[in-house]
Amino acid sequence: MIRVPIQEVQEVLREVLEKLGMSRERAGLCARLFAESSRDGVHSHGLGRFPRFVRGIRSGLVNVLATPELVAARGPLERWSGRRGVGNLNAWQSMERAITLARTHGLGCVAVAHTNHWMRGGAYGWQAAEAGMIAICWTNTMPNLPPWGSSAPLLGNNPLVIAVPRPQGHVVLDMAMSQFSYGGLESYRKRGELLPVDGGFDSQGRLTRDPGAIEASGRPLPIGYWKGSGLALMLDLLAGLLSGGQVTHEITADPEQETDLSQVFIAIDLDLSSFGDKAGANLADQVLSHLQSSLPQGVQFRYPGQNVLKIRNESLAKGIAVEPTLWEEIKAIRQSA
Amino acid sequence: MIRVPIQEVQEVLREVLEKLGMSRERAGLCARLFAESSRDGVHSHGLGRFPRFVRGIRSGLVNVLATPELVAARGPLERWSGRRGVGNLNAWQSMERAITLARTHGLGCVAVAHTNHWMRGGAYGWQAAEAGMIAICWTNTMPNLPPWGSSAPLLGNNPLVIAVPRPQGHVVLDMAMSQFSYGGLESYRKRGELLPVDGGFDSQGRLTRDPGAIEASGRPLPIGYWKGSGLALMLDLLAGLLSGGQVTHEITADPEQETDLSQVFIAIDLDLSSFGDKAGANLADQVLSHLQSSLPQGVQFRYPGQNVLKIRNESLAKGIAVEPTLWEEIKAIRQSA
Repeated sequence: MIRVPIQEVQEVLREVLEKLGMSRERAGLCARLFAESSRDGVHSHGLGRFPRFVRGIRSGLVNVLATPELVAARGPLERWSGRRGVGNLNAWQSMERAITLARTHGLGCVAVAHTNHWMRGGAYGWQAAEAGMIAICWTNTMPNLPPWGSSAPLLGNNPLVIAVPRPQGHVVLDMAMSQFSYGGLESYRKRGELLPVDGGFDSQGRLTRDPGAIEASGRPLPIGYWKGSGLALMLDLLAGLLSGGQVTHEITADPEQETDLSQVFIAIDLDLSSFGDKAGANLADQVLSHLQSSLPQGVQFRYPGQNVLKIRNESLAKGIAVEPTLWEEIKAIRQSA
Repeated sequence: MIRVPIQEVQEVLREVLEKLGMSRERAGLCARLFAESSRDGVHSHGLGRFPRFVRGIRSGLVNVLATPELVAARGPLERWSGRRGVGNLNAWQSMERAITLARTHGLGCVAVAHTNHWMRGGAYGWQAAEAGMIAICWTNTMPNLPPWGSSAPLLGNNPLVIAVPRPQGHVVLDMAMSQFSYGGLESYRKRGELLPVDGGFDSQGRLTRDPGAIEASGRPLPIGYWKGSGLALMLDLLAGLLSGGQVTHEITADPEQETDLSQVFIAIDLDLSSFGDKAGANLADQVLSHLQSSLPQGVQFRYPGQNVLKIRNESLAKGIAVEPTLWEEIKAIRQSA
C-alpha cells in the first residue's frame, strides 16, 4: 500500500471524468465520492471500483450527461428517473432532494428508478447526518444472493443504510443483506484472510469461511439465514413499488452489465424542537456512552461508523491507502482517456 | 393441543378484559388481536402471553383506561404518548393514524412513546396491508440482546415489521433482531426441539442450538452477528428520537415489569395511480411468482407471511390450537376476574 494525499486522488479522478465528458462540477463531486470511500476504508467501492466504473462509461452503461428527472410528486413523496446516469451523482442528488423535502414536510422520501450502482451507500447516510437529518436509504441490486434454502442467486443483497447525526461522530450503519458484501469478500481474499464467521457455501454446498470459495459459488449467506433472505425481498419490493423501476429479477446478473437499479432515500428532520421534550442530538451520544460504560472490562464495542472515523482521520493525516498497481492503473486511465 | 373456535376464544378473552375494566369495544379489539395471533400460529404473543398480560393489568403496569394522546404534529409526522395504556390497542390505533396520514400526505409516520408491549408486531403489518398500504413499523424492547462481542444484554431485540399488500396474500415480514425471539425460543423448548441453527451462547459462552440454554444465559445471537447488533441499535435510536420516549437502556430488564416502550409506525399509500407507470398490487405477485418458478425443483421457498396464511386457514377451519392447560388457566382467570 502507498499513501496518496486525498487532494491528489480527487484531482486525478476528476481529470479522468472530465475527459470522459462530465462537467467540471459534476466530475469534482463524483471524484470526491470515490476518493472519500477509499479515505473511509471502503476501498471496494472507492478507488477499487473506479476502473470498472470507467469501463461502464465507455461501454455506454452509464450516461455521464444524464441528470435525474422528476417523474411524479405527492407531498413528501417523490419519484424520479435516474436516466441511467452516474450512480453516485444520482444518489447524492436524491438524498439532497429528500433533505429538502424533509425541511418542508418533516420527512422526505425520494424513490429513484433507472439509476446505476451508488457505489458506497454509507456516503448518503453521512451526507444526511451532516445536514442534521436522520437517513434511511437502500438500493436493490442484480440477483446475487440465494434465498435461504436455495443455491440459486435470485435475490439481491440490497444494501441498507441508516444514519443518525451525532456531534461527536455520526452513527451510520451501512450493510448488505449478505453476511459479507461481494466487495467485502474481495477485500478478505486480496488480504489472504479467512472470514471471521461462515460467510456462505462453497460449490459443494458446505458452509465456509473462504471468501474465494463463496465468490466462486455465488452463494453468500443472508444475514440471519431466512431473516436476511426475507428482508432482502422486502427491500426489493419497496424499491420497485416506490420508484416504479426494476426489481432484482429484471436486472442483468452480470456485474459488468449491472444497471437500471431502483433506490429509496428517506430523510427525517431531526430539528424536532417543536416536539420539545428530547434533545435529539444528545440522545445518540447518551445511548453510546451508556453502552460503552456498561460493557464488561476488556470488551470493545464499536458503534456503526466508529471505525470509519478512525480510518478517515488516518487517511487525512497520512494520505489515502491505495494499492500501487491500482494507482498506476488509474493514472494510466488518465493518460488514455 | 385442543382446538377451540376463534369466536369462543375471543368471547372468553373479551369477558376477562371487560371484567378488568375495559369498555366492551376496546375489550373486543384487544381480545381479537390476541386470538388472531394464536390463529396465525404466533402462540407466544397470542394466548400464550395472555396470563402475563392480565398480571400486568392487575399490577398496574398496564392502564386499561388510558388512550393515546397527541403530543406534537408536523405534516405527515406525529408524536403520540401511549400513556402506559394497552400495548396492542395503542399500536393498532397508531397504525390506523399512520394510514390516515398516508391517505392525506402519501406517507404517514406515527411515533409513540410510553406504550406497552405490542404483542405480535406482524398484526400491524397485516392491518396496513388490508388497507392497501405498505407498512414499516418497529418497537424497542427492554435490554435482552448482547451487542456482538459482549455477553451483557444491553440492546433490545427490537422487532421490525415490513408489509406489502398483495391480493393473493399479503407479504409480511415480522422479525426480531435476535436469530430467535424469546417467544420463539420458548416455543422450541416447549416442543422439546433443538433450534435449526445456532441461536445464541450457553452460559459457558459456547454457541448452541439448545433453546433453554439460551434462555438461561440471556445471550441470543443477533442476526448476522455485528450486523443485527448494529441494526438493533439504530432501531432503538430512531424509536427514541422520533417518539421522544425511552430508549432500551432506560427500560427495566425484568420481563414482568417491561413497560414504557417506544414504537414507530410508517404507512405508505400504495395508491400510486398518480405515478401511473407500475401497478403496485401486481408487482409483489410478479416477484413471488418469478421466485417460485425459478427455484430448482424440490426447493420450497416460503415468502414472509405465507406460512401465516396456511396456519390461519387451518385455524379457521378446525379452531385455534391451544394447550389444554393454558386454556383452562385462561378460563380460570375469567372466573376470578
